[in-house]
Amino acid sequence: MLYSVDGDLVPADDATVSVRDRGFQYGDAVFETMRAYDGRVFRFDAHLDRLANSCSLLGIDHELSAETLRERVRETLDANDLAEAYVKLSVSRGVQPGKLDPGPATDPTVVVQVRELDRGPAWDAPATLETSSVQRVPSEAIPAAAKTHNYLNGVLARRSVDADEALLLDASGSLAEGATSNVFFVRDGVLRTPSLDGPILPGITREVVLDIARERDIPVETGRYDPAALRRADEVFLTNSTWELRPVRRYDDTTYEEFPVTERLHDAYRARTRRST
Amino acid sequence: MLYSVDGDLVPADDATVSVRDRGFQYGDAVFETMRAYDGRVFRFDAHLDRLANSCSLLGIDHELSAETLRERVRETLDANDLAEAYVKLSVSRGVQPGKLDPGPATDPTVVVQVRELDRGPAWDAPATLETSSVQRVPSEAIPAAAKTHNYLNGVLARRSVDADEALLLDASGSLAEGATSNVFFVRDGVLRTPSLDGPILPGITREVVLDIARERDIPVETGRYDPAALRRADEVFLTNSTWELRPVRRYDDTTYEEFPVTERLHDAYRARTRRST
Repeated sequence: MLYSVDGDLVPADDATVSVRDRGFQYGDAVFETMRAYDGRVFRFDAHLDRLANSCSLLGIDHELSAETLRERVRETLDANDLAEAYVKLSVSRGVQPGKLDPGPATDPTVVVQVRELDRGPAWDAPATLETSSVQRVPSEAIPAAAKTHNYLNGVLARRSVDADEALLLDASGSLAEGATSNVFFVRDGVLRTPSLDGPILPGITREVVLDIARERDIPVETGRYDPAALRRADEVFLTNSTWELRPVRRYDDTTYEEFPVTERLHDAYRARTRRST
Repeated sequence: MLYSVDGDLVPADDATVSVRDRGFQYGDAVFETMRAYDGRVFRFDAHLDRLANSCSLLGIDHELSAETLRERVRETLDANDLAEAYVKLSVSRGVQPGKLDPGPATDPTVVVQVRELDRGPAWDAPATLETSSVQRVPSEAIPAAAKTHNYLNGVLARRSVDADEALLLDASGSLAEGATSNVFFVRDGVLRTPSLDGPILPGITREVVLDIARERDIPVETGRYDPAALRRADEVFLTNSTWELRPVRRYDDTTYEEFPVTERLHDAYRARTRRST
């Protein structure tokens, strides 16, 4: 597999960054995880918009156009002759003198990693989900809207559970999100998910699902919810670009058997990936 | 300058890690910043103990002995013929398959970066300090006792102020620490610093200062303090391995003129660095 590092296509095993890169030193970098279906990156514009917002929240002024970033991904997919793929695009603040304060001049490091990933959700079975003892980092400390390489919070959460995904609560005990996913639940036909007022990544898949629900006249509600709301739900599912929609068969001690709304939404999601918009 | 990467001494410009290294992907790495005085790393044992504790908190089971890590630092200093130096030792969880959950088998990446740093505190003038709007990450999200490459909280704090150092408060508004330093203050002859009950890194320099104060019969108190306590203080200073002790001449709108206790402590600190214990 070839990766792209600052525009150079190099074998994955030779793809490196300087140890002085702030991405390595401080996790001072942002990223997007995307899917290519039939050679086209799904919701590419939305991912690039979010990446730009992540950079803005961190003050990474990389001076690369969205078109340049798009081209880096494009040529990496082409070089590997990949049509169905997982894509991770990272932009770090780059190498700077060894002090914490970022300098004004930024020489960003842009890395594109890809791997083949067959069309369809990247999971074999519905997920198990457990509440983590690890609390979601509050936005007052690091803005949740920024998707950054500071990912230890998620690593620790995953390590804290014996399940496919860890559910993180915020400081007040309300549902936040999974370590790598947004969480949804259905109760009495209403689709619910934590609102972005909490420390929650504005997931691209989350947004597509909400859009589909509105289009299909499925009632939608966003808000603050406690774990009990999940336990009372008829259906629970998780979303991210890799999993698409993944039903939850067990959340802590609660099990869920049927997923009619989840499946209806997922069918519509798949239809959109076929159109690749 | 030569750096050490996994035991190989390489020119700094060629010192790299894989883009798949979890240190780059997730900031899934720990580090220590140290000083060598007269060829000996000051408080080396304490730094290695804290590194081991950071690894333990993150579940990084690197299987490298303290002696091996010590030797990596030793040979890097020797290769550069450095006696007075800044040393940064990093251990990442290494390259693993591209999933968030760490695998049980760890092939850690060990990096040693050095640069010449003349004996004495690495600052030209007393510091300016400002309260940051960025809140310290709570230990419930990422344990503050772990010194990790997830350093965006400090980067954002520094960016939020127009001063040498940013002071972060915890979720309850109590003093936590600087972006790269612990904070101390003196009032009526009593030395005070936030206790480790809060989200505070157990600084090695902090510990040495507390030890010196006890030895010199300077009364010490640790606890929870609000910013007003700093404003009412007679002296304020910051500590880290690089700065040693750095007086604060301005905190927000409060200025401090004289630093008798700070200087007495710093003199004693310097004496210890000469003994290099």
